Amino acid sequence: MLSLIVVMGIVIALLAFAYAAWLFTWVKAQPQENKTITRISGLIQEGARAFLNKQYALLFKFALLVSLIILVMLPNPIWKGFSISNVFMALSYIAGTLFSAFAGKIGIEVATLANGRSAEAAKKGIKPSFMVGFRGGAVMGMAVVGACVFGVCLVYLLLGDPQAILCFSFGASSLALFAKVGGGIFTKTADIAADLTGKVELGIPEDDPRNPAVIADNVGDNVGDVAGMGADLFDSNVASLAAAIVIAAKLDATSSFNKNVATVFCYAALGLLASILGVMTAKIGKHGNPTKALNSSTYVTTAIYAVLTAIATVAFGFRWEIWAACVLGLLVGVIIGITTDYFTDDTKKPVHMVAHASHSGPAFTILSGISYGFLSTLPAMVGTGVSTMVSYKLCQGIDAAYSADYALFGISMAAVGMLSIVGMIVSNDAYGPIVDNARGLAEMGELGDEVLEITDELDSAGNTVKAVTKGFSISAAGLTVIALLGTFMSEVNTAAAELGLAGVTGFDVMDPIVFFGMLVGAAIPAVFSAMLMLGVDRNAQRMVEEIHRQFREIPGLREGSGDPDYNRCIDIAATGAIHELIPAGLTAIVSTIVVGVIGGVNAIAGFLVGNILSGLLLALFMSNAGGLWDNAKKFVEAGNEGGKGSEAHKAAVVGDTVGDPFKDTAGPSINTQITVVSLIASLLSTLFLTFSIF
Amino acid sequence: MLSLIVVMGIVIALLAFAYAAWLFTWVKAQPQENKTITRISGLIQEGARAFLNKQYALLFKFALLVSLIILVMLPNPIWKGFSISNVFMALSYIAGTLFSAFAGKIGIEVATLANGRSAEAAKKGIKPSFMVGFRGGAVMGMAVVGACVFGVCLVYLLLGDPQAILCFSFGASSLALFAKVGGGIFTKTADIAADLTGKVELGIPEDDPRNPAVIADNVGDNVGDVAGMGADLFDSNVASLAAAIVIAAKLDATSSFNKNVATVFCYAALGLLASILGVMTAKIGKHGNPTKALNSSTYVTTAIYAVLTAIATVAFGFRWEIWAACVLGLLVGVIIGITTDYFTDDTKKPVHMVAHASHSGPAFTILSGISYGFLSTLPAMVGTGVSTMVSYKLCQGIDAAYSADYALFGISMAAVGMLSIVGMIVSNDAYGPIVDNARGLAEMGELGDEVLEITDELDSAGNTVKAVTKGFSISAAGLTVIALLGTFMSEVNTAAAELGLAGVTGFDVMDPIVFFGMLVGAAIPAVFSAMLMLGVDRNAQRMVEEIHRQFREIPGLREGSGDPDYNRCIDIAATGAIHELIPAGLTAIVSTIVVGVIGGVNAIAGFLVGNILSGLLLALFMSNAGGLWDNAKKFVEAGNEGGKGSEAHKAAVVGDTVGDPFKDTAGPSINTQITVVSLIASLLSTLFLTFSIF
Repeated sequence: MLSLIVVMGIVIALLAFAYAAWLFTWVKAQPQENKTITRISGLIQEGARAFLNKQYALLFKFALLVSLIILVMLPNPIWKGFSISNVFMALSYIAGTLFSAFAGKIGIEVATLANGRSAEAAKKGIKPSFMVGFRGGAVMGMAVVGACVFGVCLVYLLLGDPQAILCFSFGASSLALFAKVGGGIFTKTADIAADLTGKVELGIPEDDPRNPAVIADNVGDNVGDVAGMGADLFDSNVASLAAAIVIAAKLDATSSFNKNVATVFCYAALGLLASILGVMTAKIGKHGNPTKALNSSTYVTTAIYAVLTAIATVAFGFRWEIWAACVLGLLVGVIIGITTDYFTDDTKKPVHMVAHASHSGPAFTILSGISYGFLSTLPAMVGTGVSTMVSYKLCQGIDAAYSADYALFGISMAAVGMLSIVGMIVSNDAYGPIVDNARGLAEMGELGDEVLEITDELDSAGNTVKAVTKGFSISAAGLTVIALLGTFMSEVNTAAAELGLAGVTGFDVMDPIVFFGMLVGAAIPAVFSAMLMLGVDRNAQRMVEEIHRQFREIPGLREGSGDPDYNRCIDIAATGAIHELIPAGLTAIVSTIVVGVIGGVNAIAGFLVGNILSGLLLALFMSNAGGLWDNAKKFVEAGNEGGKGSEAHKAAVVGDTVGDPFKDTAGPSINTQITVVSLIASLLSTLFLTFSIF
Repeated sequence: MLSLIVVMGIVIALLAFAYAAWLFTWVKAQPQENKTITRISGLIQEGARAFLNKQYALLFKFALLVSLIILVMLPNPIWKGFSISNVFMALSYIAGTLFSAFAGKIGIEVATLANGRSAEAAKKGIKPSFMVGFRGGAVMGMAVVGACVFGVCLVYLLLGDPQAILCFSFGASSLALFAKVGGGIFTKTADIAADLTGKVELGIPEDDPRNPAVIADNVGDNVGDVAGMGADLFDSNVASLAAAIVIAAKLDATSSFNKNVATVFCYAALGLLASILGVMTAKIGKHGNPTKALNSSTYVTTAIYAVLTAIATVAFGFRWEIWAACVLGLLVGVIIGITTDYFTDDTKKPVHMVAHASHSGPAFTILSGISYGFLSTLPAMVGTGVSTMVSYKLCQGIDAAYSADYALFGISMAAVGMLSIVGMIVSNDAYGPIVDNARGLAEMGELGDEVLEITDELDSAGNTVKAVTKGFSISAAGLTVIALLGTFMSEVNTAAAELGLAGVTGFDVMDPIVFFGMLVGAAIPAVFSAMLMLGVDRNAQRMVEEIHRQFREIPGLREGSGDPDYNRCIDIAATGAIHELIPAGLTAIVSTIVVGVIGGVNAIAGFLVGNILSGLLLALFMSNAGGLWDNAKKFVEAGNEGGKGSEAHKAAVVGDTVGDPFKDTAGPSINTQITVVSLIASLLSTLFLTFSIF
């Protein structure tokens, strides 16, 4: 039955690819006639491709190095004799990086096609424009989750080894870490520099083609929000499956119920199927509300998923407890999304309060935004805690002899459930930057006020939905890494059994070695985000200087008769991002290894816990505060609290600028950082078990 | 021998009181002739007393309520029969609140005496002015630590019950929590409102007597930085001793070495003695450097302490391992202070970078400040982690049969060591607001530029030293609460033994109930600080309105001929602070009880861990970022990056305003919050053990 289900997974993944290809062709077939839009959209595509190629070239060197280390070390050190497993591990790792890169690449290609077409479709009304944006996003959604399910099924089918899936996941994560960091630094460098020189200094509108940074800004939306986000969610999705499969395989071999691995594959495949159906049925009326359309497609997918998995549970004889944990995870995810939305929704109190505080100056915009950002962490932290506790209680009774393992399995299935509809989430998420770009292109192509109004509405829907999906994806990453903690313990015990050492039954917070790890682990996300923000800061300063230089040296640029050198700006953003991504990424990786070498597996367990707690807290805080400031600024611009040009507006712009690297660079990168660290810990458990100073 | 040592503790405490009385008389005997200064200093004293009385009146109602609950519930529920222990517990709790209030009260009295006298002494040069400020601060230092040692010794001598010391500590903590929160909100309300209306809107200098908020601002320095800080460090100090004594008493009764309690009392008493000697020998040359004078007195005290305790270890036959843990804690504390200082020192890179970033506008001041604030958490987190691990390794070998308990005892002694020189720390800390006030009074009393230069220098030394002591006191609180976690487990086991239930050997991070607690616990410091900052925000808005009203309605106020209504401003700050302190304080207390009732002792253990990790991280981040912004502003004002009035200066002022509630309201209050939560957990362990939903 297991093979049948894995093959079913591959079939559904191929279906997703086919559907993605159809959507891609559909998007490409949409008319794009305006010459300016075609030219600029081409520049954006070129810039995005150039950065991605540059970034991937560097990352594949890194990946090659890591795969060599794996070849030499994992799972059997080469000095103990040649092992074919090592080759498989290294290949799985490489496959993980390739699949992740593929997902990002597809996203960029379709997004840079869809942006111009969505802008032009807006001439015919909101419906066609929305459909181009949404279907463009859906290509990415289908590609990301298709690649995830396909990759995990294939590795399992060929090698049948859960540890290989861990390696595949590590490949995906390590690429995602750098892609997210690099893309995040690129996009905010360009965004901040463009705003600072354009809107603030020169008083020209956003997306004015005279601004040399304007193309870089649009490229940034694609490489940061599309490619980076895709890599991030691909990574979380693979990691949740890897965690669940490692625990499930152990249970299949020992406990009285032996369909656990089958359950994981089946539910994951059905999640993808539900997303396909959800995307297919997504509709918007002629004068429809795009936010409603996006959200309702999420709810439809959730419902389809619950029904499909229930049918499968009956058909294959799975356990209802596991189904319940899975659906619980999904429901909690949706609830977290909705409650987190409260803090960034421009019809709710927090946005209004921050906008109002801006009257007293930027310091109050910042203080109130930080305060609400702090408050906004509560629902997701409590929600994650509750799903951990309840899914554990649900599943521990499946086999009394293995209650601890089933409890952990329950948690990992809650994470799988939360991520099951990720195809839909990615679709909605990728929709955002496409229509954001469309808005810019409509302005540059001078398509008129009516079109701009439509693209503005689509853009604003993208921002709202992004806030919901962000809370969702951070919590999912949180639940995944909690499950990975279980994987880590399981790997430690496997390694200990092989080495003839005593295994562990848990990690005691009263053990000072564990506590040492927790303290250091808790500091890492703060240090990591600081490095990213300082990177953006430095890089934006460089770009501002370049823009000043162009305005000084290129005759007629200010008046619109001279041609700005867009490529120099793209180049600065790209070089800076690539320069900054290595130290930040290495800090996370190296600190894990150092703590492990100092304090062994106990210190590492503590390190992971501290990292998860502070990582979740900071990621939620930064993402939500950033979204809140963004919407507070838009709320003022819509004519409230004095409107555009008022003192309150100036203060709100400061808030938005601070929020930009919060929500688009540091916040979402922490997600990936905690996953990478968890996977490294699992993969190196043998090392930490056999060697440590304390 | 134990009784002898406890009596020695009482004698040294009385010595500290006597020395404090002498210093108080000395300060009071210094001349104060300037009429304006006398009048304004009188107004400040009056305002501070009025607020303190109002606050204490409210808090004693709260304390009475809590003591009634203790009387009914702890340690033996009254429905199981009357127990004299309950009376003792309730009395110990009341004593804790009274001693804490006494420490705050003394501080206020001397600080409001010393401020004017220090200003006037500046006419004679830096040396006399420094001495008034320093000795004024030392009164507070001696009183706080004297009260701590006296109180703990007395309770132990009379009742001989470690749990009574826990109750005494809880009394001190619960009062400190509210005093810190109330004082913190008061001081920043007034500071922000005064700056916003005075410096920004009207362009009049700081401390200009025309500003109706100016007295409230000076009162705030006293009630927030003197009384609040005193209560805070009193609380940490008592808590560290309580944690150590609970563990030591258990070891004395069971293990092969039985001088553990004696060691705790002896080392604590010697810490006080070392502080007395350190204060006595503190000197500044005629043209000396006040920063150097303050820091070198800290180093002298550290050295004296190490020597005194070494002698005692030989004389009384204590264990060298415990001595080593204690001295290690102290050394790590000093190192943390110094490294943290790097991030706020105006001769170092972070301050320069933030000042430089201010050129690009306030958003960059904020972003770079937050980034360096995040980075600054690393040394203290790692330092705390290392002292935890090393002190554990040092002490676990004392008795192999009780190695886990000795390991915990080692950690608690590292905390005692870190806090041993707290008398010196409080002296240095209280010096700050005194000379800050003196600066204001010198300006209002028109003592001339030469005097202002001296008071400026003294003030700046106060700020630098404050940065060092703050990192120190946060880490000490961190180590204390880690030790309190040990106390919690010990209390759970005592309760379990009495109830005939199974005890616990630890709390496993793999237990999802523990993890649930950790996630919620990690969110609480964020929620708590958000409430405080929003409180300051709301309150400052109210005061700004009042100041606007006064300028509108009082004729001649702007020109200096009308009299501002200082009292209305003081009243707004006071009423607002008292209004806001209850919800924030209760959030911390109630969430602990809710988590305990949901998940029992395991959830509470997790809750404490999450709370400690995120609490330490946020407290360090907020305190350091705040100090950094403060000094970056001063650096710009000293003529760098464009100097006063430049765009960079305006941006730096925004940073400073954001930093104010960070460093003086939220950051230091988190300290107290984590201690209170830990003590509640220990005291209610029986409840959580016998009743929980999961």
